[in-house]
Amino acid sequence: MPTLILVRHGQSQWNLENRFTGWWDVDLTDKGVSEARAAGTLLKDKNVLPSRAFTSLQTRAIRTLHFALEGCGRLWIPEVKDWRLNERHYGGLTGLNKAETAEKHGEEQVHEWRRSFDVPPPEMDADSPFDLASDPRYDGIDVPRTESLKLTIERVLPYWESDIKPVLASGETVIISAHGNSLRALVKHLSGISDEDITGLEIPTGQPIVYDFDDAMQPAERYYLKDR
Amino acid sequence: MPTLILVRHGQSQWNLENRFTGWWDVDLTDKGVSEARAAGTLLKDKNVLPSRAFTSLQTRAIRTLHFALEGCGRLWIPEVKDWRLNERHYGGLTGLNKAETAEKHGEEQVHEWRRSFDVPPPEMDADSPFDLASDPRYDGIDVPRTESLKLTIERVLPYWESDIKPVLASGETVIISAHGNSLRALVKHLSGISDEDITGLEIPTGQPIVYDFDDAMQPAERYYLKDR
Repeated sequence: MPTLILVRHGQSQWNLENRFTGWWDVDLTDKGVSEARAAGTLLKDKNVLPSRAFTSLQTRAIRTLHFALEGCGRLWIPEVKDWRLNERHYGGLTGLNKAETAEKHGEEQVHEWRRSFDVPPPEMDADSPFDLASDPRYDGIDVPRTESLKLTIERVLPYWESDIKPVLASGETVIISAHGNSLRALVKHLSGISDEDITGLEIPTGQPIVYDFDDAMQPAERYYLKDR
Repeated sequence: MPTLILVRHGQSQWNLENRFTGWWDVDLTDKGVSEARAAGTLLKDKNVLPSRAFTSLQTRAIRTLHFALEGCGRLWIPEVKDWRLNERHYGGLTGLNKAETAEKHGEEQVHEWRRSFDVPPPEMDADSPFDLASDPRYDGIDVPRTESLKLTIERVLPYWESDIKPVLASGETVIISAHGNSLRALVKHLSGISDEDITGLEIPTGQPIVYDFDDAMQPAERYYLKDR
């Protein structure tokens, strides 16, 4: 039976510093590495062994995937990386810590950007040190200048439909190592969560979330693997 | 211009213990990890940055690839794993240390197996603890019971022609992280080395070997990246 495992990357340096990260390529902290390893150990202990892997183009998600696969003895499975699983692009907020942002734009405005479904933050300046338009990793990709959660969903779901769902439907156990908002996009879709509710749903880091699918590719309730 | 980078995995636990390894999935030692990281630093320092990666289904080569890619900031490139890049299968010698093998089979016989081009070691017993026929990693693959270097070449080269060479020909910088004998197969082919000479050619661990290709996909002389 098809099984889907979602893992949000472990703690990154900017998670720790409470800065907006988005597409900026920040690495895991030591704690983040431990979280990723623990996810792998859990997969092994529960005998939920991925046979195919998907991740983003961002180091923190790729390394989380590799530690998790190592932990369950599955480093050898095929892995595909795609920008459409990247974190939401935080536009002009990228690099700011939450206090700086509040000071600059006001608490209420920041809250709206973080929690609104369809209001994107201001666009990233062309001269921002965090601009990635010329990064070779994104050659041929129209790097967004900002994204709302809605815009994030609009690039995650077509990729889910075209590339991930068919693999899952063939009976594989698929692991996706990704980010808070690209995973929210999937959970919203699979669990039928409203636009209002999805922005408040927290995806914990390094904690495998599982969906079992039936033959008609309908997902059962999602659960945390640690609870089974 | 197409560029090919070959990297033999860093020291493994059984390299250290001087045991025949072959397809058995032995991990890197700390020294092996350091060698792999150093390969990545060298790629970065020399600005030879891979855009596509190939490796075997064996942990020591996959981890070497990942450390090398991390070291040069290229963890995000597409990576493909294939059993045809695996180490030569050492058959019934798998797991034995070199002293045990000499005691069991005689120094001269061991020398012949190690250095002969086309004489394979005895086949692995069906009840060997090192038998991998039922390992899910090799589902659908006819796992060899032993291989000579010649037999190794006969599965590496078709894969080179069908999967790696076309990618290289499209102008990519390809890195292959693999094993002493799967890399010998490639070096023999690309550098036109005789059956007699190839068995004595040592590929050092963690030391990137580079071939630059011309437009007609003819390789220039190979060189160690450290020497440029």
